Amino acid sequence: MKIAGIISIGNELISGDSLDTNSSWLSRQLLPIGIPTISVFTIGDDVKIISDTIKQALSKADIVLITGGLGPTDDDLTRHAIADVLGVDLKLNDELLSQISEFFKGRNINMARTNNIQAYLPESATALTNHVGTAPGIMAEYENKIIIAMPGPPAEMMPMFNKLVVPKIEKYGHGQVVLTQKMKCFGTGESVIAEKLGDLMARGRNPLVNCTVSGGIITLHIVAVAKTKAQAEDMIAADRDRICEILGDIVYSKEEKTLAEVVAQELIERGKTISIAESCTGGLLAKTLTDVPGATGYFTYGWVTYCNEAKVSQLGVNRDTIEKYGAVSQQVALEMAIGARQRSGSDISISITGIAGPGGGTEQKPVGLVYIIVYNGGAQKVHRFVFSHSREYARLRTVLTALNLLRLEFKD
Amino acid sequence: MKIAGIISIGNELISGDSLDTNSSWLSRQLLPIGIPTISVFTIGDDVKIISDTIKQALSKADIVLITGGLGPTDDDLTRHAIADVLGVDLKLNDELLSQISEFFKGRNINMARTNNIQAYLPESATALTNHVGTAPGIMAEYENKIIIAMPGPPAEMMPMFNKLVVPKIEKYGHGQVVLTQKMKCFGTGESVIAEKLGDLMARGRNPLVNCTVSGGIITLHIVAVAKTKAQAEDMIAADRDRICEILGDIVYSKEEKTLAEVVAQELIERGKTISIAESCTGGLLAKTLTDVPGATGYFTYGWVTYCNEAKVSQLGVNRDTIEKYGAVSQQVALEMAIGARQRSGSDISISITGIAGPGGGTEQKPVGLVYIIVYNGGAQKVHRFVFSHSREYARLRTVLTALNLLRLEFKD
Repeated sequence: MKIAGIISIGNELISGDSLDTNSSWLSRQLLPIGIPTISVFTIGDDVKIISDTIKQALSKADIVLITGGLGPTDDDLTRHAIADVLGVDLKLNDELLSQISEFFKGRNINMARTNNIQAYLPESATALTNHVGTAPGIMAEYENKIIIAMPGPPAEMMPMFNKLVVPKIEKYGHGQVVLTQKMKCFGTGESVIAEKLGDLMARGRNPLVNCTVSGGIITLHIVAVAKTKAQAEDMIAADRDRICEILGDIVYSKEEKTLAEVVAQELIERGKTISIAESCTGGLLAKTLTDVPGATGYFTYGWVTYCNEAKVSQLGVNRDTIEKYGAVSQQVALEMAIGARQRSGSDISISITGIAGPGGGTEQKPVGLVYIIVYNGGAQKVHRFVFSHSREYARLRTVLTALNLLRLEFKD
Repeated sequence: MKIAGIISIGNELISGDSLDTNSSWLSRQLLPIGIPTISVFTIGDDVKIISDTIKQALSKADIVLITGGLGPTDDDLTRHAIADVLGVDLKLNDELLSQISEFFKGRNINMARTNNIQAYLPESATALTNHVGTAPGIMAEYENKIIIAMPGPPAEMMPMFNKLVVPKIEKYGHGQVVLTQKMKCFGTGESVIAEKLGDLMARGRNPLVNCTVSGGIITLHIVAVAKTKAQAEDMIAADRDRICEILGDIVYSKEEKTLAEVVAQELIERGKTISIAESCTGGLLAKTLTDVPGATGYFTYGWVTYCNEAKVSQLGVNRDTIEKYGAVSQQVALEMAIGARQRSGSDISISITGIAGPGGGTEQKPVGLVYIIVYNGGAQKVHRFVFSHSREYARLRTVLTALNLLRLEFKD
């Protein structure tokens, strides 16, 4: 199996001014053709560091893909570094020079003298034509390995990779297909999932099952390596079924969907409408539910009853209930849910009241305390949580939890 | 001068499933304290590759910062790799174990057995307390160089870096001081700003003035390099004043504030309350205004009147107005603003009605059409925009524009 190493070049990348998205894109393209990436190096515009890094990458990888440093200015040094690694000189390529001149003529622009440098190639290397910009790519062989350099701007790099690089390297990926499938989970922690899945998550297993977490959403990545696409698909399907069986309702999507998308689909399929009465989340639940195109089909009314008076006048919450139990209480949550459902005429209502913080907490009612109710006119169940960390996190977790409670409602 | 190397660990990063934003953030924090980054390595969850890469990084850098691979599962191998580099064993740290148990107890969750591994440290290394999650960071010295490992989730990594790592490493940054100041602008394009600022944005100038754009918000970065902090601060202040003079009201913050924070401060200073009646933005404006802690001080009522019936029953919009002009019209926007202000009793109301798309557009009323009104009881001015691109972009641009209109209201 051939392995790839990726090098991203540019001072703006190591200063943090720009985010390198090229290497992530390249690894996503390489994996399905059977070439996994072993490492990504991000370095600045320094010819010695570039050539050292190319040598380093060549020591572990068979194919080294470089982006950046092919422009016309003094800080574009990739071609010099490749020549250095190959132990050859740069040589003017007349065909390239005329291609670059044509590029400028075609756009009615005078060609700056500095653009000449882009017509120079390391001896023994070949050029990859750039149909979008002036910087040609470079391809060279070195001790049975391949060095490929492409321009940094994604709009130039991507078509060059797809049209010129893939046809040259896909033969190295033969024999192996790598497929990845994501599954989304909510409602428990990473370590609980790891314990439940046990050996399924063992290192070195094929498929490999990885786990990443973001904002309480846990994503399982199933990576299968096989001889054919059909085999890899079968292996993934088998693992996916086993994981669903073990984790049950914790899995909310076998594809790469958001919780809001899953819930929206359930609402549309069942022909149900929903209204939202929220306090501490300040509109985030309504916003999240209406992120999905076509929300008109199920979302009707939303209230952000931030002050007590709004809860009373808009949802019909009893003033006495607020005085007796406080605005953040299961009693107020109940009256909010009832009021929202009645006044909107929706099939289902969700109410949220809580303390997002950072201020406003007490010993009995700490910051992060939240009550959530999903009400369909039947029995009411009050869900109480404490989400600490930060205002932003508490609000996000509350909204995801409300969507998840709604999803589970449909399971009954 | 000390130099940093950064290593990001995770199979999801080299497969391209997730984008590594940690290393870019870290280099941005390191530069102002005088520690430039020489290279960034992104590698998978393999103990041999991790320890090899740490050794490689140590060969060129004095401070090696690692993120990821500190979780409780079998694919979290950073602590093993550091022990390998240091040539020591992992040892159970009783204090860490009790900290981790406390973390779970505090949340009323049973601690999974796999979490024990997070209490193990390479001998001779010290732990960095994690106040947000369970994975402690690791700090170790190696031949006068420093290895620092932090958890991968940005919400855990960032506070750990700011609170615990910066105080330990800032002493290594002596020599040159690099200060960066951000200024935030809204209401015009990048090229207009570049034209107005002219030579101020010339390359190679010190301070260097850069420009980045995200969701319509333009951020100017003033980067000054000087011998002392005071010198750099003076240089930045001079540029900041010139930029404010040239751009005027386009600059909404001379610090790194959001539009919502700026508007919230204005509302609080003036003792004004606000209510929101929004349709196509589905709660996003209310959410954005209540992102700011202390929103109780100015935010009172919010309505997400997604369906026509909600506009009528909740805001008192005339049914005839909707029939005659359509829900997306300046007339309905006006009645929404009046209804919201009257029913909430707030000083100011904002109304939004539009077509977020992707469906629902016509020739007269295209997708992206939106009406916004900021109403304080005086004269009403209807603002009409068409924000194309995507549903997400149209909603975001609408909300930012509404906040900006409110900000400009206070300028009069």
